[in-house]
Amino acid sequence: MKDILLEGVLMTKWVYNFGKDYNDGDASMSDILGGKGCNLAEMASLGLPVPPGFTITTQFCACYYDNQHSYPDELKEQVADSMALLEETMGMGFGDPENPLLVSVRSGARVSMPGMMDTVLNLGLNDETVEGLARISGDERFAWDSYRRFIQMYSDVVLGVEHYDFEDILDSYKREQDISLDTEVSAEGWKEVVKRYKALVVNDQGKPFPTDVQEQLWGAISAVFGSWMVPRAVTYRKIHEIPEECGTAVNVQAMVFGNMGDDCATGVAFTRDPSNGENYFYGEYLVNAQGEDVVAGIRTPQSLTIKAREKDGSSLPSMEEVMPEVFAELNDMRIKLEAHYCDMQDIEFTVQKGKLFILQTRKGKRTAGAALKIAVDMVEEGLISKDEALLRIDPQSLEQLLHPQLDPNALRNVLARGLPASPGAASGVVCFSADDAEKRALSGDKVILCRQETSPEDIHGMHASEGILTCRGGMTSHAAVVARGMGKPCVAGASELLIDSKEKVIRIGDIQIKEGELITIDGLTGQIIMGEVASIEPKMSDDFVTLMSWADERRNMGVRTNAETPKDATVALNFGAEGIGLCRTEHMFFDPERIQNVREMIFASDKEARCVVLDRLLPEQCGDFEQLFEIMLGLPVTIRLLDPPLHEFLPHTQKDIAGFSKAAGIDEKTVRLRLAELAETNPMLGHRGCRLGISYPEIYEMQARAIFEAAVNVHKKHGGGVIPEIMVPLVGARKELELMRKVVDDTAREVFEERGVTLAYLVGTMIELPRAALTADDIAGAADFFSFGTNDLTQTTLGMSRDDASNFLPEYTLKGIYERDPFVSIDVSGVGALLDIAQEKGRKVNPDMKMGICGEHGGEPASITFCESIGMTYVSCSPYRVPIARLAAAQAAILKI
Amino acid sequence: MKDILLEGVLMTKWVYNFGKDYNDGDASMSDILGGKGCNLAEMASLGLPVPPGFTITTQFCACYYDNQHSYPDELKEQVADSMALLEETMGMGFGDPENPLLVSVRSGARVSMPGMMDTVLNLGLNDETVEGLARISGDERFAWDSYRRFIQMYSDVVLGVEHYDFEDILDSYKREQDISLDTEVSAEGWKEVVKRYKALVVNDQGKPFPTDVQEQLWGAISAVFGSWMVPRAVTYRKIHEIPEECGTAVNVQAMVFGNMGDDCATGVAFTRDPSNGENYFYGEYLVNAQGEDVVAGIRTPQSLTIKAREKDGSSLPSMEEVMPEVFAELNDMRIKLEAHYCDMQDIEFTVQKGKLFILQTRKGKRTAGAALKIAVDMVEEGLISKDEALLRIDPQSLEQLLHPQLDPNALRNVLARGLPASPGAASGVVCFSADDAEKRALSGDKVILCRQETSPEDIHGMHASEGILTCRGGMTSHAAVVARGMGKPCVAGASELLIDSKEKVIRIGDIQIKEGELITIDGLTGQIIMGEVASIEPKMSDDFVTLMSWADERRNMGVRTNAETPKDATVALNFGAEGIGLCRTEHMFFDPERIQNVREMIFASDKEARCVVLDRLLPEQCGDFEQLFEIMLGLPVTIRLLDPPLHEFLPHTQKDIAGFSKAAGIDEKTVRLRLAELAETNPMLGHRGCRLGISYPEIYEMQARAIFEAAVNVHKKHGGGVIPEIMVPLVGARKELELMRKVVDDTAREVFEERGVTLAYLVGTMIELPRAALTADDIAGAADFFSFGTNDLTQTTLGMSRDDASNFLPEYTLKGIYERDPFVSIDVSGVGALLDIAQEKGRKVNPDMKMGICGEHGGEPASITFCESIGMTYVSCSPYRVPIARLAAAQAAILKI
Repeated sequence: MKDILLEGVLMTKWVYNFGKDYNDGDASMSDILGGKGCNLAEMASLGLPVPPGFTITTQFCACYYDNQHSYPDELKEQVADSMALLEETMGMGFGDPENPLLVSVRSGARVSMPGMMDTVLNLGLNDETVEGLARISGDERFAWDSYRRFIQMYSDVVLGVEHYDFEDILDSYKREQDISLDTEVSAEGWKEVVKRYKALVVNDQGKPFPTDVQEQLWGAISAVFGSWMVPRAVTYRKIHEIPEECGTAVNVQAMVFGNMGDDCATGVAFTRDPSNGENYFYGEYLVNAQGEDVVAGIRTPQSLTIKAREKDGSSLPSMEEVMPEVFAELNDMRIKLEAHYCDMQDIEFTVQKGKLFILQTRKGKRTAGAALKIAVDMVEEGLISKDEALLRIDPQSLEQLLHPQLDPNALRNVLARGLPASPGAASGVVCFSADDAEKRALSGDKVILCRQETSPEDIHGMHASEGILTCRGGMTSHAAVVARGMGKPCVAGASELLIDSKEKVIRIGDIQIKEGELITIDGLTGQIIMGEVASIEPKMSDDFVTLMSWADERRNMGVRTNAETPKDATVALNFGAEGIGLCRTEHMFFDPERIQNVREMIFASDKEARCVVLDRLLPEQCGDFEQLFEIMLGLPVTIRLLDPPLHEFLPHTQKDIAGFSKAAGIDEKTVRLRLAELAETNPMLGHRGCRLGISYPEIYEMQARAIFEAAVNVHKKHGGGVIPEIMVPLVGARKELELMRKVVDDTAREVFEERGVTLAYLVGTMIELPRAALTADDIAGAADFFSFGTNDLTQTTLGMSRDDASNFLPEYTLKGIYERDPFVSIDVSGVGALLDIAQEKGRKVNPDMKMGICGEHGGEPASITFCESIGMTYVSCSPYRVPIARLAAAQAAILKI
Repeated sequence: MKDILLEGVLMTKWVYNFGKDYNDGDASMSDILGGKGCNLAEMASLGLPVPPGFTITTQFCACYYDNQHSYPDELKEQVADSMALLEETMGMGFGDPENPLLVSVRSGARVSMPGMMDTVLNLGLNDETVEGLARISGDERFAWDSYRRFIQMYSDVVLGVEHYDFEDILDSYKREQDISLDTEVSAEGWKEVVKRYKALVVNDQGKPFPTDVQEQLWGAISAVFGSWMVPRAVTYRKIHEIPEECGTAVNVQAMVFGNMGDDCATGVAFTRDPSNGENYFYGEYLVNAQGEDVVAGIRTPQSLTIKAREKDGSSLPSMEEVMPEVFAELNDMRIKLEAHYCDMQDIEFTVQKGKLFILQTRKGKRTAGAALKIAVDMVEEGLISKDEALLRIDPQSLEQLLHPQLDPNALRNVLARGLPASPGAASGVVCFSADDAEKRALSGDKVILCRQETSPEDIHGMHASEGILTCRGGMTSHAAVVARGMGKPCVAGASELLIDSKEKVIRIGDIQIKEGELITIDGLTGQIIMGEVASIEPKMSDDFVTLMSWADERRNMGVRTNAETPKDATVALNFGAEGIGLCRTEHMFFDPERIQNVREMIFASDKEARCVVLDRLLPEQCGDFEQLFEIMLGLPVTIRLLDPPLHEFLPHTQKDIAGFSKAAGIDEKTVRLRLAELAETNPMLGHRGCRLGISYPEIYEMQARAIFEAAVNVHKKHGGGVIPEIMVPLVGARKELELMRKVVDDTAREVFEERGVTLAYLVGTMIELPRAALTADDIAGAADFFSFGTNDLTQTTLGMSRDDASNFLPEYTLKGIYERDPFVSIDVSGVGALLDIAQEKGRKVNPDMKMGICGEHGGEPASITFCESIGMTYVSCSPYRVPIARLAAAQAAILKI
């Protein structure tokens, strides 16, 4: 506690003043001034003209309880002194009927706490001062409305009169007058209501409402201190382990009004344009108005500056013109604030009788584009460093810049909401099957493919569609992953919808949407909207390019992309991908031209027959890889050998079975028998990944041959630049990798001998099973690199199928069992622990081993931060997430130190 | 090297003699005598009358190569001396035409090595000695056959004449004589063959076959040393990192013949009866015969002892009667051998002209029952300690003692073979559905239930059947696990079979087995046998009880059982279970009487409706638990709350759906819709375990109430002895356990208040997900105990569905990717690592925490050894495995030190 010498007597300092020109406190004193008092002191210390006032310290709170709720004379003296200073500063008198000073009284503990008294406004009003307020504001109705609000609020929180009794009175009055809105009550009306309120208080308390402003003040102060010990507050402190001793402070602050005449105004300002980031003073104000008038939209707010007025073509004069001095002062504040906070600020201000008051300043909300521009500008202006600029941008927000967005001003008839699974927005006609979608698209329609959930058989339909809508599956369902990869909007797991592909209708409650009807999906919000909504095309600004270049300088981790089509690879390259981290070869097999061969391969009766069909697939696979190697020339291309269980490639509908059976010359019964044979109870944990390679090495051999032939071709054409990295999926034991590696190495040797060229290549493994992570030291002995498949690793570590988790996962995040969807953001305690074990064990054997992640988490900022923390070499993500990953990796690198 | 004084000259000792009465070497000298020489020396050192001989040391091998493949005089002298000793011992002369001593020459490195010369037999035969052999054996044909064999073998391995040239000669001769078998060749015939063989050698070598026995001997010795450096041997050493310096020894040993007259014999003896373990001399012999005559079954072997002869009712005289002196000597050997090896021995012997020779002695194979009796007897005889007795018994072998077995003498028409999934044997008529099985069984038939794979809906059918046969699934498939639990034989995953439940037929190639036909399955071998095969009932011997009591004294870990029916619990208790480690409550729900209620509960539209149905299930569940608490009075009963996904309880066939729909008053379309809603892609990773409890706490609440009401009832009846332990399944995060624990604790408090009794109980968690293991320290804060569910933990850690693994797992163990089926024996590197992490993290928070495993591994010896090594408190296994677990736990405790 601080002692002060007051009038020659040494006393404890209980009261701290704050205001533009004097200020006893500072930002460090939250312990004794409480959170609110400390904030006010901080603004004041910056020289901001906050409405002045004073804070009674939290330390006095204990004193109050120790002294049977009484106030020592020294406190009374200090409060009186501070009030006198306040009156002087404001040029008004507390209780002065001519020029009444009104104050607010607020509690303010170190942390804000429910149950405690919050605020009493307009304290200082009584039958005399209300008249003074009416006079100086020129608005009798406002004055009496303020008075009746004060009585109601004070009686409720200080005197403990039930607040609904007041509401009853007002309701009765309005009924009598046959009006329904408060705004219809006249000044005379409020006078009548005040009369009745006062009668209620006498009735309830046995004595009249206090008209003495000092009594009002001390009553409110007592109420604040008293509320420290109400049961709700006590319980709250117990739960949150806040010690009782810390106490609450009391803040008394002058009320200021922007509606006391034409020399008054109120407004909101941003130090830069929050919608595009341009560096000019942006804001709105109204003369002779209250804050709520600006927001309520009854009067049209006017621009702050001439520039903005001209830009908007508004005929209403700007504040710069109407109040040039005050505007100049405000403009000074703008510069001061940016210099102090080094960020764009959102300011609330009031002008009372030509005097500017800043009520609040805080970091201004802005669009992603504005954030980008502001950050880059501020670096150029020398306000912030590049690192600070990089940290300013929420990586996720970049999505807004890379996808078309719905026009925020367009009307939306929202039918339902699903998960925002892949950003962007699209409108199109509803289709219920991939084939229908393709047909419609060919005939020129824009299509939204609507499925319960998608499967690899739907790929061609997804390609043909503008967007994808499903009613099952989560953020990493097939639909979501593939859509993100394609950069198409997707709303997934919209469980309110019943998608009936048989009857070709979507049902949402009583609403039915039939095939061919137009809908819009918004992948940013998850909204499903009736009809077409206008959208805005994205553009990549120079600021974007600049910031990304800074990110690239700063980050430690590489950023690759998950891509298998030339289109995806090209998009990713343009977004700055440094190679392919995951090319899923199975996606190439679903091509309608090839699927017949793939299926015949599965139906081959023995190895020899299988090899015959594989020979037909070889040139096609080879072509795929050639294209990717060409696009990624000079960059590594990581190719994963076949992963999904074979039954995923088989026909399942009667029609498809019949078609395949006829084309392949295999009778339908045999087809069905094989289907039944290959069916699995848990395909995720079934005969897939390198288990296929173990059973049918000839498949991997064909793929390896395709890769190496393609590599040699492109190498010969360009004289180098081909960097193939081959990846074996679902390895659980070193021996698996060894066996598959032998297939790849043998094939490489053959091709190199045949073609007379030898190329460097790597053979690595996916680490996507807990066992692989736990035995990573053993496996590292046979691998050139590790690529962590965090999708599957999450499924196995948590024992959670991402296809089925939508039935319970939302409840899980709701109940806080998992803080975030573990398929979206890496589960650090579980999956993260395994990644850490694996990298440590792997590096023990091979210290320079390249390690990356290629699950969906590779494009998610929190997961990227985790990857940096355990020393990953790179992350790989879908093309549209590459910029996000670049920025997040830079942020992780900055924050690591 | 050892130096010796020979005839006054100090020389290196290159040659070591061995024989009953003199023996230079011992068991420790394998470095210089090689493996074979060392074994012979060891037998000789025990005073066994091994055929005498001598070993040229491995050290000479280097010397041989250092000296251009020549032999120093000192070696020649030592060999001559040893040979003289040998002649003296045998009373025969090497090269003596009257009484020829024949020898074998063998190589013998420290480890046996392919590529090296192995053996030359009958060395010492030539045109003169063969006549002597004919005379003393009285068998001219035998003598000439021996001679031609010697020429062929010697020419092949010593002279390098191609062996097929000899075969050609023999074939031509047989063609000329129009005979096809060697046995049809007469003495004269062999003489002719010898003539032609010798001509071949002259032709090939340019000089005649060596007739000088010394030349023969040194030729063979050189061949042995020469074979040390042949390329195959060199390569083998390189691969196996055997240093070249270690060299090979040469063993020269007298040949002995049991067919040289009626004072000769040959036989095989066991020191105790290998079929039942009785402590008497058991064996067979033949007078004037070779070893192969005993085995070949051409002559009927005779008993060794009078006792055995009388027992068998044989009229052929025993050796005890025919050769009493030699028998007495052999009987001495028996006692000597058991005293030395402290185990039952299997002995090969030959009597040559009244002289006993022991050719080999080794640990005798025996049945499980014999092993048990021998071990217990030997402890009582003071031969071995209790610990040694415990280690002598293979725990797995106890299965033979606990289940009915097929009569080993009965004929078996084996159709196919599957996995020996649950031991025991059963015959019955084939049924293809659980309902049919139940009906048939009710009508008095013994039934074998044949399914592609079983599911929980088949439980009543499995109960009604004698045994279960499936063509899919592995050792831990549903069928296997449930059958083992029930103690019923099961053959699983018999993939040669096509089980067509629609047409009600099993197809095995062209064979068809229709419903109602009789088959037999052998769960010990996996055989599927046509028709009925006689079987033998098991009995638990006193020896079994004794050994088990020793095991109980010795082991550290408790042994509980996995049981949910009163029958299983009773069986397990009789087998020595110390409580229930896993009661799977869902099994109780499949009772046909209850399933309707369970299904209605699933179809309840909201919580309230669900609670109404749950109230109907409550008294039934309560009754289940009362029975278990009664049976296990005084022992802990660990109850797992509902685990499987709800769709497992739903009807799936058209008939069942219709039936349910009618009974529940829900239209079929709604039923089908809900079925589709609840269907899961990967049910193993789906909405199950505590995820159900999170979604529908009322289900767990009902179960908790049933447990506590039952506990209170039994407690009141018996005045105590109820120890409930409640287990939450599939926990991945601490919060899940906390939420579910609250449901249980709240319910307990309610019941205890209602009933005026308070009981101690525990609430623990399954650790069956990698995440649970990795965050075990966190979870331990909310758990009273851990129970490791190693089945699910194996599935998730390895990413392997046990229902689907049969498609690739056999190939995996075949290729050595996993040494053993990880669902049978714990995967120590992966799953084991997680168990170790979990126990360590758990114990860090709660050092005294009870930890057990309740997966199938709980009854598997290697897994039990692992559990002991990481300090598990107990293992829990199916009832019939309880004795195995008790013994394996004792062995693990003994071997831990």
